[in-house]
Amino acid sequence: MVLDGGNRGRARRLALGDALAQHARALPDHTAVVCGAHRATYRELAGRVDRVAAVLHAAGVERGERVLWLGYNCHRLFECLLACARLGAIFSPLNWRWGTEELSSAIADAAPRVVVWQPLGVASPGEQRDAVWIRHDTEDADGYEARLAAVASSDSGARAPEDGFEHRPVLMFHTAAFGGRPSGALLPEAGLLQQAAIMGLLEEASPASTYLNCGPLFHIATMTMTLATLVAGGCNVFVPKVDAAEVCAVVAAERCTGAYVLRPTAEEIVALNRDGRFDLSSLRVRTGLAAFDAMTSAETTRWSARPGGYGQTEAGGLLTYRALGPPPIGSHGWPSPLAHVRVVDPDLRDVAPGETGEIVARSPTVMLAYWNRPELTAERQAGGWHHTRDLGRIEADGSLTFVGPMSRIVKSASENVYPAEVEACLATHPAVAEVAVIGVPDPVWTQRVKAVVVREPGADVTPDELVEHCRAHLASYKKPREVVFADALPRRDGRVDYDRLDADHGGGNYPGSVTDYPS
Amino acid sequence: MVLDGGNRGRARRLALGDALAQHARALPDHTAVVCGAHRATYRELAGRVDRVAAVLHAAGVERGERVLWLGYNCHRLFECLLACARLGAIFSPLNWRWGTEELSSAIADAAPRVVVWQPLGVASPGEQRDAVWIRHDTEDADGYEARLAAVASSDSGARAPEDGFEHRPVLMFHTAAFGGRPSGALLPEAGLLQQAAIMGLLEEASPASTYLNCGPLFHIATMTMTLATLVAGGCNVFVPKVDAAEVCAVVAAERCTGAYVLRPTAEEIVALNRDGRFDLSSLRVRTGLAAFDAMTSAETTRWSARPGGYGQTEAGGLLTYRALGPPPIGSHGWPSPLAHVRVVDPDLRDVAPGETGEIVARSPTVMLAYWNRPELTAERQAGGWHHTRDLGRIEADGSLTFVGPMSRIVKSASENVYPAEVEACLATHPAVAEVAVIGVPDPVWTQRVKAVVVREPGADVTPDELVEHCRAHLASYKKPREVVFADALPRRDGRVDYDRLDADHGGGNYPGSVTDYPS
Repeated sequence: MVLDGGNRGRARRLALGDALAQHARALPDHTAVVCGAHRATYRELAGRVDRVAAVLHAAGVERGERVLWLGYNCHRLFECLLACARLGAIFSPLNWRWGTEELSSAIADAAPRVVVWQPLGVASPGEQRDAVWIRHDTEDADGYEARLAAVASSDSGARAPEDGFEHRPVLMFHTAAFGGRPSGALLPEAGLLQQAAIMGLLEEASPASTYLNCGPLFHIATMTMTLATLVAGGCNVFVPKVDAAEVCAVVAAERCTGAYVLRPTAEEIVALNRDGRFDLSSLRVRTGLAAFDAMTSAETTRWSARPGGYGQTEAGGLLTYRALGPPPIGSHGWPSPLAHVRVVDPDLRDVAPGETGEIVARSPTVMLAYWNRPELTAERQAGGWHHTRDLGRIEADGSLTFVGPMSRIVKSASENVYPAEVEACLATHPAVAEVAVIGVPDPVWTQRVKAVVVREPGADVTPDELVEHCRAHLASYKKPREVVFADALPRRDGRVDYDRLDADHGGGNYPGSVTDYPS
Repeated sequence: MVLDGGNRGRARRLALGDALAQHARALPDHTAVVCGAHRATYRELAGRVDRVAAVLHAAGVERGERVLWLGYNCHRLFECLLACARLGAIFSPLNWRWGTEELSSAIADAAPRVVVWQPLGVASPGEQRDAVWIRHDTEDADGYEARLAAVASSDSGARAPEDGFEHRPVLMFHTAAFGGRPSGALLPEAGLLQQAAIMGLLEEASPASTYLNCGPLFHIATMTMTLATLVAGGCNVFVPKVDAAEVCAVVAAERCTGAYVLRPTAEEIVALNRDGRFDLSSLRVRTGLAAFDAMTSAETTRWSARPGGYGQTEAGGLLTYRALGPPPIGSHGWPSPLAHVRVVDPDLRDVAPGETGEIVARSPTVMLAYWNRPELTAERQAGGWHHTRDLGRIEADGSLTFVGPMSRIVKSASENVYPAEVEACLATHPAVAEVAVIGVPDPVWTQRVKAVVVREPGADVTPDELVEHCRAHLASYKKPREVVFADALPRRDGRVDYDRLDADHGGGNYPGSVTDYPS
C-alpha cells in the first residue's frame, strides 16, 4: 500500500538533530551546555556540532561507522554524540573504570574510525592504529579544538534522516560481560528520543531546566536525562565525574534543577555542606536521605517525588516507572506508556499473576542488537520479544516487582526454579547472612534444589527450619531439598562464583537452553 | 547493515493491541469500558475485541481494508478500532453531523468492506452495496451482538505486527472539505501511541483514571484522550454525544476524572447543577468558567491546569502543548517533545523570529497520507515536512502563537502577505466589526493588498486611519493599499466567501502554487 505520494515517511522521522536545530532557531541565545569554563548557547552548540561532524567525516566516519569516546564526562562527548547522529554513525562512550585489557578488547571489537580520547593511563593511540585518535583535552595542533577551528562553519539545518531511520543505531553502550567480554548494545535514535520524551515529561523538563551530568555518560541512566534536557531545550551541565565538592559548587553556581545523585554522594554532600555554605535549593531531587533532601528545593517533579523503575541498558533505559500513577504495590512501578511488559516462563508463556518469571518486553526503546553478536542478539530477542534475563512478577495493581537477575534456571521435573527467587526468600530469614542456590543432578527430577547458607554469627538454625521457611513462602516445588552450611560463599570479581559452588557442592545438569547470564 | 540476527525489529513494534493485552493480563478485572448499561473488564474487552476481529475478518476485512463507523459514540466504536488494529485494517468513524451527500461521498471514496452503523436518517445499507453493513444497536440476528455471540472466543495475546508496521495506518479521520469533498487523513498506529503517551503523561493518566468520552470520537481531540486512557490502563466511559444532563449523571455515577467539556457545555452544566445535585468533584477539568471549575476537583493535572495547544487532524493531534514548562508567551505553548516545529516562508526557509509564516512540522505523529489524494498528500508533505497550512510565529521563549489559517497568499512583489495576519491586525481596531483581505492584480507588484471592512455600528473611521493602524503594527509591505467599506461580508456555509469577495472587489492573480485551503 503506497499512499503517501512518494514522501516515504520523511515528515515522521524525528532525529536528535531536530531538537538541536529547533532550539538553535527558537532559543538561539539560551545556554545549552556548561562544562568548566566552557559555555555555549544553542546556536553555538549547533555550530560546533556542525564542525565536529565535518571533522569526523574528514576522518572517514560514514553511516554505520563507530566513533569511541575514551574519557570522562565532557560537553565534547555530547557534541560527538550529536555529530554522529548527524552522520548516521554509531557513538560509544567507553567505561573509563575499565582496565587496559577490557578497553583493548572493546576497542578492537568496535573497530572504530575515530577514538576521541584523553590520557587515562589505560589506553593510548598505540592501541588501534587503524583509527584516528583525536585528543580532546589539549590545545595541540591535531587536537579536537584545533581541528574544529580549522573547519568552516556549515549550516545547522536538520535534514530528514535517510530511509531505514526507524532501525538506525546511534549509541552503543557496553553492558555486563558475557562469555568474558563486554557486549555493545546498539540503541536506536527513535527509541532514545521516545525514552527522553517520557523522562522529560515526568521530570517536567523545560527550557527552565538545568541538569547536572555528574553520573557517568557511559551509562543509559544519566544519558536519558541528558537527552530529555536537550529535547526540552534545557541546559546540560557537565562535570568530569561525580565529586561531592564539585557537585555542590556547580549546583550552587548554575542553579541546577536536576542531577544524578546516588546515596553515597548524597551522604558526602551532607557531611560537606553541614554549614550550608553551598546553596542547593534549586535542586528538585530526592535521594531518600532526609538531611540531603532538606537542602534541596521544596518543589518536586513527578519523577523526583517517586524516582526509579525497572530497566536495563539493552532495553534503552526504563521499562517501568514508579512515578506513573498512585504508589505501586510492586517495587518498580508500572509499565512505561511505550512498553508492553510481560513475565513469562522459558516457553514465552505468561506465568500466573503473582508468580515469578522472566521479564520480557516489547517497546520502541529496546536495543536493535548487540554489536557483533548475532547469536546472542537472536537469543535476547527470540520470538519477537526483548528478553531481559531478569526475574520479576506482576502484582495485583499491574505494577512490577523486580526479583533479581535470572542467572541459571534449575529444572525440577517440569517445573522451572529460579535460584534468585529462592535465595531472596531464604535471605529474609533472620539466621541467614548469605545464601546461594544451585541445582544438583537428580535421576528422577532432572535436578534438585540445593541451598548453600552462611549463617549470621551466633545464629542457630537447622536445615529443616530453613526448608520450612521456604515452604511457608514459596510454591513447594521451589523449596530446597538440601540445605548445607558454609563459612563463606566463593566469589570472583566481587560476585558469587556459581561455577565454583557447583564444583564444590555437586551442582550440574542445568537445562541446556539457558546458560549463565551474569547481569 | 543487518545487525539484529533476523529479528527485523519485532521487539520494538508496539501496537494498540499491546496495551490491551497487557492490561487484560495484569489488570484482568479492572473496568475498561462503560457505555450505558454495558460494562466490561479488560479481560472481557480483550475477548470481545478478539471476536469483533473474527467477525470483521469473516466479512472480508484484511490488511489495509477500510471499516467505517456510522453512528454516535459507543464502546463498540472503540472495539472496532482495536479489532481493525489487530487486523491491520483502517478504521474510520464518520461525522454523524454530515448530511446525506457528504456521507455518501465519503463512503464511496473509502470503498469499505464493512460499515458498522445505526439509523441516523442520513445513510443506510442501500448506499454502498459492496460493503457488509452491520447494525450495532440491535438484537437482530445479523446485528453486531448476534454476530459476536456466534464467534468462538479466540486468544487475546498480542502479536508482533508485520514488517512495515512503522508506516501502517490504523485510523482515518475526515477533515475539512478540500475542493468540495472531505479528505481522510490516515494516521499511523505508532504515532497515535506516541501522542497518547504524551497526553497520558500530561493528564497523569493511570489505572485510577476514568475518562468520559462525551466529545465526538470522529475527531482526534477526544480520541487522543481515549487512547491515553487505554494505554494507562484506565477506564473509558462512553455517551452517545454531549448532553449536559447525561454528562452530569455519568460523571457523578462513575466518578469520572476527565471529560471533553467545551465552554458551552460547561455553561449548560452550571445552569443545570446550580443546586449541586450532581457531585462532579471527581473531575480534574478546568474550562475557565469559574462556576463550573468550582464544581470540580481541587486537584488538577499538568494538562487540566493549562490545557490546549496547537494541532490539527493531519498532524495526529497536538504539535505544541501549553502544559509544557512555565506559562508561555505564545498563545499555544511549546513544541511537543516528539515534534520539530518550524515557521517558514513558501520556500521552506525559516522566517525571522517573531515573524509570521506557515507552521510546518516533523513528528512521528503526523499523518501518513490523505486517503486517495496522492497529489494533495505530496503537497502537504513537500520537502520532508508536514505542512499545516496554518500561520503562526515563534515567540522569544520558543513558544508558538497560532495566527490563523493560511488560506491564500497575496504576493506583493517578492513579499508574501498572509491575509489572515492583516485581518487579525485590522480586527483589533475598535471601529472594525468584520474584515476580509484579498489581493488585487497589480501590473507592477503582481498583487496589491485590499481590505474589505465592515464598521462597528456608528463607528467613524477613514480608510487612511485603518492603513495607519496596520503600518503601526505590521511590516509596511503588509498594510492594505486600499480599504473599502461594506455593509456585510459575503458568506457560504457560515464562512467568508472569498471567491465572491474577489468577484465583487476585483481580486485575483494569486500565486499559482498555493490555492485555497479552508481550515
